[in-house]
Amino acid sequence: MSLPPALIILFGTTGDLAQKKLYPALFALHQSGQLNPHTQILGIGRRDWQQSYYHEKIASSIRLSEPVPEDLLQSFTDRFTYYQMDITEHEAYPLLWQSMDDIERAGQTQGNRLYFLATAPDLFPLVSKQIGSRQNLHADSFRRLMIEKPFGQDLQSARSFNQELRSVFDENEIYRIDHYLGKEMLQNILILRFGNRLFEPAWNREHIDHIQISVLEPFGVEQRSGYYDRSGALRDMVQSHLLQLVALLTMNQPDSLQPDAVRDEKVRVLRKLRPFDRVSAARDVILAQYTTGAAMRAYRDEKGIPEHSLTETYTAMQLWIDNERWQGVPIYIRTGKRLNQSVGKITIVFNQQDYLGMHNDRQANTLVIRIQPEEGIDLRFNIKKPGMTTEIEQARMNACQNCQRGAASPQAYEKLLHDALSGDLSLFTRWDEIEATWTLIDSIQSVRDELPLYYYPAGSQGPHAAERLISRDKKTWLDL
Amino acid sequence: MSLPPALIILFGTTGDLAQKKLYPALFALHQSGQLNPHTQILGIGRRDWQQSYYHEKIASSIRLSEPVPEDLLQSFTDRFTYYQMDITEHEAYPLLWQSMDDIERAGQTQGNRLYFLATAPDLFPLVSKQIGSRQNLHADSFRRLMIEKPFGQDLQSARSFNQELRSVFDENEIYRIDHYLGKEMLQNILILRFGNRLFEPAWNREHIDHIQISVLEPFGVEQRSGYYDRSGALRDMVQSHLLQLVALLTMNQPDSLQPDAVRDEKVRVLRKLRPFDRVSAARDVILAQYTTGAAMRAYRDEKGIPEHSLTETYTAMQLWIDNERWQGVPIYIRTGKRLNQSVGKITIVFNQQDYLGMHNDRQANTLVIRIQPEEGIDLRFNIKKPGMTTEIEQARMNACQNCQRGAASPQAYEKLLHDALSGDLSLFTRWDEIEATWTLIDSIQSVRDELPLYYYPAGSQGPHAAERLISRDKKTWLDL
Repeated sequence: MSLPPALIILFGTTGDLAQKKLYPALFALHQSGQLNPHTQILGIGRRDWQQSYYHEKIASSIRLSEPVPEDLLQSFTDRFTYYQMDITEHEAYPLLWQSMDDIERAGQTQGNRLYFLATAPDLFPLVSKQIGSRQNLHADSFRRLMIEKPFGQDLQSARSFNQELRSVFDENEIYRIDHYLGKEMLQNILILRFGNRLFEPAWNREHIDHIQISVLEPFGVEQRSGYYDRSGALRDMVQSHLLQLVALLTMNQPDSLQPDAVRDEKVRVLRKLRPFDRVSAARDVILAQYTTGAAMRAYRDEKGIPEHSLTETYTAMQLWIDNERWQGVPIYIRTGKRLNQSVGKITIVFNQQDYLGMHNDRQANTLVIRIQPEEGIDLRFNIKKPGMTTEIEQARMNACQNCQRGAASPQAYEKLLHDALSGDLSLFTRWDEIEATWTLIDSIQSVRDELPLYYYPAGSQGPHAAERLISRDKKTWLDL
Repeated sequence: MSLPPALIILFGTTGDLAQKKLYPALFALHQSGQLNPHTQILGIGRRDWQQSYYHEKIASSIRLSEPVPEDLLQSFTDRFTYYQMDITEHEAYPLLWQSMDDIERAGQTQGNRLYFLATAPDLFPLVSKQIGSRQNLHADSFRRLMIEKPFGQDLQSARSFNQELRSVFDENEIYRIDHYLGKEMLQNILILRFGNRLFEPAWNREHIDHIQISVLEPFGVEQRSGYYDRSGALRDMVQSHLLQLVALLTMNQPDSLQPDAVRDEKVRVLRKLRPFDRVSAARDVILAQYTTGAAMRAYRDEKGIPEHSLTETYTAMQLWIDNERWQGVPIYIRTGKRLNQSVGKITIVFNQQDYLGMHNDRQANTLVIRIQPEEGIDLRFNIKKPGMTTEIEQARMNACQNCQRGAASPQAYEKLLHDALSGDLSLFTRWDEIEATWTLIDSIQSVRDELPLYYYPAGSQGPHAAERLISRDKKTWLDL
């Protein structure tokens, strides 16, 4: 089914996100015939680029990942128009509106407008205010705003930004991006939990011992040092991606798959996350920064990072959810940069089953949900060791989602652009989710001056403190 | 760990069971070093065989299955002594006792005696009475009796046989064989159910829709026509193997793995099997016999089968367990000969999960326990169809037990002989289990004259009536 036509106005078209993610995602929709033939993209940048140079930049970002027929590429870049402006200049916008009107009149986008903010985060409020002030020309058309994370830097700034947004947009015109929600396996969590009779009866404190979430990255801050040093792992990863994972794993069953039904339940459980105080943060939150290691420079020696920066590039913590379903079930999360592996995964560790008196430490059932780079589900359970014995051993069953077919799963941005164009808010975060997650992060930030900053060598498995965090409970980060 | 030494007295040593199952099983124990070096076997037969001929028969039954070093085979057959007698003659036994005493005095079997009845079933009472009358010479030695199925032909004959046995044996000297219990995957059922936290919470009427058990054989009555025509599928397969499977699948968790703790729970659930009456048998029991098909002769044309025989070579039925855990969960079982496949398997079909309004007929979770010829566990569950969709598809996870290693699982008789020699009664049926299962079978036999006998062509999938039995409940025999 083809998507409705629209004019996509892309702020930050010369940036990294556009080059690495958005052009390939839009191309995939173009190639599969989902992108409406009348859809056009107006790319806005400050640089002085010619149309031909712009088209060549787009084409080469596509060619990077796969060989593509040149005529297909040509028909794709033909959709793009470059528009040069300084988006911080109030006076520049009337001319932009004029150009958009011209494109709409000449083309067949039916007046639908999808704005995408891929600029530096500090420009989000300014640009969105301008956009919000401009109504569509056509009465029956849609106006939607896709905003990259982060949504604010803390609860106060997020709230203030949201108030500005809401003064010019309806909540359901705002598509707050958490690109993790576009990932195949995150969409799978709800189906796995609520679409199978086998898992749900055991999905609670009575049967689950604890939950582990690990998002480990081998790379460093790359081009984003300015942004990253003001954010750190807590704001950049935990507030968004990791807490979204927590919500999907622990929410109750929604009444339907309607976007607001799902988000209602996510918010409900996010609000039950126990906030940290001085004592619990000191005990249950680990912040760390990478130093030199494996021939890589220290964080403080990265280009653009202050030499006395105290920003955390790694964090691990133990979370609790204060409701009946999860009371007493610790959730351990960890995420960091410059680590010795690249992995995103969830591990559900079920309670030990004391099998009729034959206790064995290695018997806990585990369900591993692999998010990246592999996508799949992996179940460890106990069977009889074959042969003349009653000993038990662990068997592994495995369903690999991205091994199943020739084609890989769609990339997150492909799914998110698709959904925004079709008006499906399911995989975008609602304001109250943002509010609940910043509340938790703020509870740590407000006492962070009292927390130690640990160090770990680049290319290592992270700080020892993260091992101690979990080993004090006689558990361990599982590398299944 | 080596087994204790014993003199194994094998009645029926020239028969099919001995050749096909017992010699290979004993050889496997010999080869793996588990059979005590002092253990000897006294094989009793009516035929006039020389020792050397006897040894050669044994050796060739081993060579059939695998190439074996001749010296290993020699050391194995050296354990065997042939003893010719007519076991129906009362006067013949004193000489047998004399020979056994001689062997025990000359060897080092420590006076332990393991009797194995592998004769025609109608000789069991006579022989066991003789054996029972004879006490061991050594006070600290064990005396055990392994009896092949069937244990009686109905409740009355079983009870009478049991009373005779119990007048000369203790219950715990009697090892009633149901060789299915020696199969690897049957031993695995309890571990799977009670050794995993994931399955038990869903193992009840709230989450299970129904259970299917299929034991389908391609072969006919072979050499056992006399026995088989008096038994039929109900007595030969259902009373023993299939009802044992039902018990293992539906029993409550025992307090321990002690043999009597397990058997207590099996009996408890077997006694809750709802007996049939005239009406329910007519509705829920299918009896059928094979006719000619696929170039194979009809049952009634088999050698030794009366030409108007009404014996069932196939049966299917719907069972109910009247307890709180299983109320309302139908158990469909079927077994037969001369079918188009060879398979023994259990399928647990969980309730449909109406996934948030998206109902889909193919979504039920299923757990398949494969007993033969493959041994393994297979789980079907729902995941998101990869790609730009919220559709659901079934994923399959599979753990193959007999694929895991080079060596195959031990054969059932190897395990059972091992356990009888070591005194472990776990995998042998206790009298009260026999009593409960005959009670169910008798409830059918008492009204069988009123039941139709259906027919199915040899080499087919069985009678249509068995399909109707399950399709009337909007279910189907699953071929997963």
